[in-house]
Amino acid sequence: MTTPAPTPATGRDPLDALDDFGIEVPSWAYGNSGTRFKVFTTPGTPRDPYEKIADAAQVHAMTGLAPRVSIHIPWDKVDDFAALTAFAKEQGVAIGSVNSNLFQDDDYRLGSLANSDPRIRDKAIAHHSECLDVMRATGSKDLKIWLPDGTNYPGQDSLRDRQDRLADSLAQIYAAMDDDQRLLLEYKIFEPYFYTMDLPDWGTSLLHCMALGERAKVILDTGHHAPSTNIEFIVMQLLRQNRLGAFDFNSRNYADDDLIVGSADPFQLFRIMTEIVAQGAHLPTSGVNFMLDQCHNIEEKIPGQIRSVMNVQAATAKALLVDQDALAAARAQGDVLGAHGVVMDAYETDVRGLLADRREARGLPRDPLRAFAESGYAAKAAADRVGGTQASWGA
Amino acid sequence: MTTPAPTPATGRDPLDALDDFGIEVPSWAYGNSGTRFKVFTTPGTPRDPYEKIADAAQVHAMTGLAPRVSIHIPWDKVDDFAALTAFAKEQGVAIGSVNSNLFQDDDYRLGSLANSDPRIRDKAIAHHSECLDVMRATGSKDLKIWLPDGTNYPGQDSLRDRQDRLADSLAQIYAAMDDDQRLLLEYKIFEPYFYTMDLPDWGTSLLHCMALGERAKVILDTGHHAPSTNIEFIVMQLLRQNRLGAFDFNSRNYADDDLIVGSADPFQLFRIMTEIVAQGAHLPTSGVNFMLDQCHNIEEKIPGQIRSVMNVQAATAKALLVDQDALAAARAQGDVLGAHGVVMDAYETDVRGLLADRREARGLPRDPLRAFAESGYAAKAAADRVGGTQASWGA
Amino acid sequence: MTTPAPTPATGRDPLDALDDFGIEVPSWAYGNSGTRFKVFTTPGTPRDPYEKIADAAQVHAMTGLAPRVSIHIPWDKVDDFAALTAFAKEQGVAIGSVNSNLFQDDDYRLGSLANSDPRIRDKAIAHHSECLDVMRATGSKDLKIWLPDGTNYPGQDSLRDRQDRLADSLAQIYAAMDDDQRLLLEYKIFEPYFYTMDLPDWGTSLLHCMALGERAKVILDTGHHAPSTNIEFIVMQLLRQNRLGAFDFNSRNYADDDLIVGSADPFQLFRIMTEIVAQGAHLPTSGVNFMLDQCHNIEEKIPGQIRSVMNVQAATAKALLVDQDALAAARAQGDVLGAHGVVMDAYETDVRGLLADRREARGLPRDPLRAFAESGYAAKAAADRVGGTQASWGA
Amino acid sequence: MTTPAPTPATGRDPLDALDDFGIEVPSWAYGNSGTRFKVFTTPGTPRDPYEKIADAAQVHAMTGLAPRVSIHIPWDKVDDFAALTAFAKEQGVAIGSVNSNLFQDDDYRLGSLANSDPRIRDKAIAHHSECLDVMRATGSKDLKIWLPDGTNYPGQDSLRDRQDRLADSLAQIYAAMDDDQRLLLEYKIFEPYFYTMDLPDWGTSLLHCMALGERAKVILDTGHHAPSTNIEFIVMQLLRQNRLGAFDFNSRNYADDDLIVGSADPFQLFRIMTEIVAQGAHLPTSGVNFMLDQCHNIEEKIPGQIRSVMNVQAATAKALLVDQDALAAARAQGDVLGAHGVVMDAYETDVRGLLADRREARGLPRDPLRAFAESGYAAKAAADRVGGTQASWGA
Repeated sequence: MTTPAPTPATGRDPLDALDDFGIEVPSWAYGNSGTRFKVFTTPGTPRDPYEKIADAAQVHAMTGLAPRVSIHIPWDKVDDFAALTAFAKEQGVAIGSVNSNLFQDDDYRLGSLANSDPRIRDKAIAHHSECLDVMRATGSKDLKIWLPDGTNYPGQDSLRDRQDRLADSLAQIYAAMDDDQRLLLEYKIFEPYFYTMDLPDWGTSLLHCMALGERAKVILDTGHHAPSTNIEFIVMQLLRQNRLGAFDFNSRNYADDDLIVGSADPFQLFRIMTEIVAQGAHLPTSGVNFMLDQCHNIEEKIPGQIRSVMNVQAATAKALLVDQDALAAARAQGDVLGAHGVVMDAYETDVRGLLADRREARGLPRDPLRAFAESGYAAKAAADRVGGTQASWGA
Repeated sequence: MTTPAPTPATGRDPLDALDDFGIEVPSWAYGNSGTRFKVFTTPGTPRDPYEKIADAAQVHAMTGLAPRVSIHIPWDKVDDFAALTAFAKEQGVAIGSVNSNLFQDDDYRLGSLANSDPRIRDKAIAHHSECLDVMRATGSKDLKIWLPDGTNYPGQDSLRDRQDRLADSLAQIYAAMDDDQRLLLEYKIFEPYFYTMDLPDWGTSLLHCMALGERAKVILDTGHHAPSTNIEFIVMQLLRQNRLGAFDFNSRNYADDDLIVGSADPFQLFRIMTEIVAQGAHLPTSGVNFMLDQCHNIEEKIPGQIRSVMNVQAATAKALLVDQDALAAARAQGDVLGAHGVVMDAYETDVRGLLADRREARGLPRDPLRAFAESGYAAKAAADRVGGTQASWGA
Repeated sequence: MTTPAPTPATGRDPLDALDDFGIEVPSWAYGNSGTRFKVFTTPGTPRDPYEKIADAAQVHAMTGLAPRVSIHIPWDKVDDFAALTAFAKEQGVAIGSVNSNLFQDDDYRLGSLANSDPRIRDKAIAHHSECLDVMRATGSKDLKIWLPDGTNYPGQDSLRDRQDRLADSLAQIYAAMDDDQRLLLEYKIFEPYFYTMDLPDWGTSLLHCMALGERAKVILDTGHHAPSTNIEFIVMQLLRQNRLGAFDFNSRNYADDDLIVGSADPFQLFRIMTEIVAQGAHLPTSGVNFMLDQCHNIEEKIPGQIRSVMNVQAATAKALLVDQDALAAARAQGDVLGAHGVVMDAYETDVRGLLADRREARGLPRDPLRAFAESGYAAKAAADRVGGTQASWGA
Repeated sequence: MTTPAPTPATGRDPLDALDDFGIEVPSWAYGNSGTRFKVFTTPGTPRDPYEKIADAAQVHAMTGLAPRVSIHIPWDKVDDFAALTAFAKEQGVAIGSVNSNLFQDDDYRLGSLANSDPRIRDKAIAHHSECLDVMRATGSKDLKIWLPDGTNYPGQDSLRDRQDRLADSLAQIYAAMDDDQRLLLEYKIFEPYFYTMDLPDWGTSLLHCMALGERAKVILDTGHHAPSTNIEFIVMQLLRQNRLGAFDFNSRNYADDDLIVGSADPFQLFRIMTEIVAQGAHLPTSGVNFMLDQCHNIEEKIPGQIRSVMNVQAATAKALLVDQDALAAARAQGDVLGAHGVVMDAYETDVRGLLADRREARGLPRDPLRAFAESGYAAKAAADRVGGTQASWGA
């Protein structure tokens, strides 16, 4: 029941590792989103990619935690990506990974990269060539593919044939990539199809990545699993295979709820980060890209993102505070309660003050949510962003 | 391993009970629907309530199984409901229950009947007064309320206060109803809110109905439960309480998938109908309204509805074929495998031919799907319904 | 991001409510338990009810949190219950609720209180008469009934008939009770039967209690629900109905895992206690009996129980620290993130030191686990308790 | 809505493939089994491996479907395995796969092959050497390993280290095997550990098999997955990787319920067999070993096994009746409902009569359950098997 000392005798603070820890935020989190039943609109919502990046930059300005912004093609398509890249830099952030879109074209009703129609597969493959060009223009190194393909009814299509077609499509995309670009492949148990997805689980995603080559890695979205799945086990296993490419962080109680990360089960987030830290994957050298992928259906978007990156940071801080020596000793003795207790002691630690101190030392606000609220940014955006079309799903 | 004889010695065919068994179809099943990611469009989709009813009438014309059409306010709002009612009659069907809509107004972001803002609650209550007027114009007797209210984050609102406000709102609606109108209250475990819904389970819905009065009954949507819930048990329990008002039939593998009823787990549908038959609730006198509530995201809508009502009929037929004498005898002996076997024998029976014979005897097509395909209706609708706006979520 | 002040301006410490908060511990937690695959044995395990109570008294001696011990009939059957009661008192604890056993007799293969055989139902009812006599001898006021009845195969028995038989059996037991005795009825979704249980959910349990009378209340075991069930909602609803009689606390990741409460999802435990506190149900006057019901398959049993009661206390402390004024204000403004933040601030608070201080002030060890480890009790028990039969499932 | 013709124009009956389709039955299904709460005893239960094999042979004698019996070491340990093998042959069956046991030794409290203690790992590895010797004596070719290792509490042990130790242990076992022996590795999401298992999913099991070599294959137990997992997808994927070694068939509604296969979701069983047939894996040349792994807690054991193998046969027959030409045509046209309908037509077909005809043609009883009931075998066993100890978990 001891609180891990934040500054051990060695003089080295375990929380220093946080200095290099950044979380990528998604451009689409700043636009309106919702459920199939309703997308609620809010004043001040961005109307173009520039405004989305400006909003994302606020998150970084308040927290120092969000140095990159993921973009989505075609949602964030602009005529001049060099200009967008420069704009981001001015705002203090960089363009991060590029996300393709395989779900918003009528042609994709029965699938995209796994469709039985060669014309449609070619169209989906060509879309990724476009994404690769965007990456070359923005300097992005990660191509993120979420494959929304699947079927709704038993018998509808051959599950095996769909795998084979998918493998062929992915191989074509991989072949078109530069040597310093990575292909990140995301799995999801269900939605938008409800009998089976073509990439429903980490095992399937990993098999495709292994067939492609070393620059193909798996994306783990924390909301994309069956109920009661132990996600930190998958994290450990993908790291053990050197195939964890990225996280899409969010929270779920039921399905792919896309809630604020850490709001539904903060202990799970801590357990995940504990496995990350245990294998050194929190370090930039690990190549694991930590990203958010969330919806803010009813809450304010920028504050929602600020809270999210702070939640990830807090969980990481607690993971760094685990007393590894005491843990190793308890495990070596087969002391079940003792080893568990060491981990729980780190989790029980209140890191809010420690993290506020660190922010202050870096010239950042102690209380980012309050600082943003007091900045007047939201009111100004609401006043300025009149006319035009709000960015939303597909906008 | 014996097939129950369809015509027992008494000369009475247990399947005769099917003659009075009808399934209500929803007007919104004929418009476009989809997931939060995409609504695929299809040619020939209805553009107004009249065209939806015309489509629904095709299902009845092919199967004799769908004599009523549920409508949704405001989706099916027309200037003259008497005219719509007359049109339905001409098409060979009737207007069934009236469904209110509490999820497509920006005011309802934090709830409708359970909202903490009295103005918004009043607005939601007033909407039901409008629905009751529609019912008086169409002769509908069932007001269906699906409450989409809930919260996304722990602490967001007081769960208890929301119950109390909801109870008050429902009491006001109930008080405004005529003596021959019923209030049917639907529960759902999650979506569109993801921390908690205000009517998440049958127990909560039942408690509110009990507080309201005898004309308040529970709606059981087969897709609105937690994984591994035994739905037929709930059916039995609500019947035992005389509080099962209606079914919303559909299928699920994961969440509220809204697939074709009987496509994901036909044995579950049979078990449900077996409990229904065991308590005589398949008879019109039971007051249980059997309805579909489905989406046809990727398949043709009218054939999807035809297949659905046939699936419900087939499951009901099998339930009627259970050899009740043999079952009672096996149960009395504690013969686990024997009693299970009696039920399985009914399930294993191929009723397709028996049901085709019955259709033929009533002057209906032996093969409804083929008959519809050959009728040319779909092609004509696609040709005629050009211009205007397709009916879709909210249209 | 403010830590709630433990001693507000009023001079009243919200944590003072903890002084009257006690958790009942189960006698069977001190015996060996396990899975269907293996019960691991440990030295020093109690061999009779007296030794179990002695062990349970250690938990209270170390924490001041466990003033009562639940007993189980027939596992804890003794010739002289007055002597056992006196022994408990000497040890510093009291006999708490009495649990009946309906699962360990060959007669109960197809059910007990819901069995179709009147002889077996009568036997099960008579067993409760015996339990009531034990209660009169020990001064216990709560009869706890977990009904393990159910079926394994569709069709095996009539679900409806089983409800009716169960209702009749319960009515006979209730009629035999004294006016100051309560009947507490526990539900469970599955196990030991796997098609359906006869009391699978809170709704069914509540309906039976309502039929019995005001002294019949529901027991909520935190491990007895379907995946993704929102348990704190049920807590709120049962309190709203004034029918929450008791908790069986434990933790689950998958099924009825019976792990240490708070070890799988400490945030869930906090949310539950937050609903409890919100309705004042943490006060002794509420009549809610907070109990543990756990297995310690691989860890030491007494330390496992100590950790458990401390986990419940910590969650309760955090719930008491929620800034109710700030919460009400944020909710009134519809401030989703603000209201959530108030609750999270309480959860993030490290209460370990505060609780150690309170223990010290009461003359209890600051670190109960360490104090127990250093007491030598375990080694003495292992040395003394040689010969005889270890208490285990059914022993 | 057409019934596939059992004898197509080519004169080749698709059901002829059933002649070579056999299901292996487990010796332990004939002994008593149960839940952690109770193992109910039954008269006539076998008292040694010989009696178990005699019982298993009854299943084959009645159905012609169960030519092999899996054995379990040490449960089926005998002094002379050659004699046991000869006895099986006399009874008309063969000894099938050999199952090791890693869960019933006190040493395995914290794991066996993944234990941190080298002594315990060596003991677990040595146990498999013994199993290999049994295989050499019986002529068995498949070593089945279900690894029950795991942890109950976060932090209890290093998940990564456990993987590495497990990999090393498995490599030692694999190295000791003969070239014609296969190692079959089973995964399970939870139980007997409840935080994480060391082989929780097919992906982990497959990775270990790939590291071992080509004779290592995955076992898919149909009850070992998270809720809502699409099992037939995994079947397809493992076949695509040529790594599906065996099935453990059973049924589940909630967890690893181990009910009679096909009793909880017969449509799922059909979908699984449809994927099997689609890749030709029902043929003996596929190397897929189809086995039962069930408990018969409350029903008669031999009839329970008879019903089970008949259920698998019926599902396979329906899968063979799928009109592949019509299915391919519908899929090629993107006809969602048409392709689904082709599969459903096969499922709806009543194959009971067809299978009875085939049994009769082979000199087997038309109605195996009735034939067994009338044989007097059960009564004779109950009379003969008096004294001795009934075989049960661990006996």
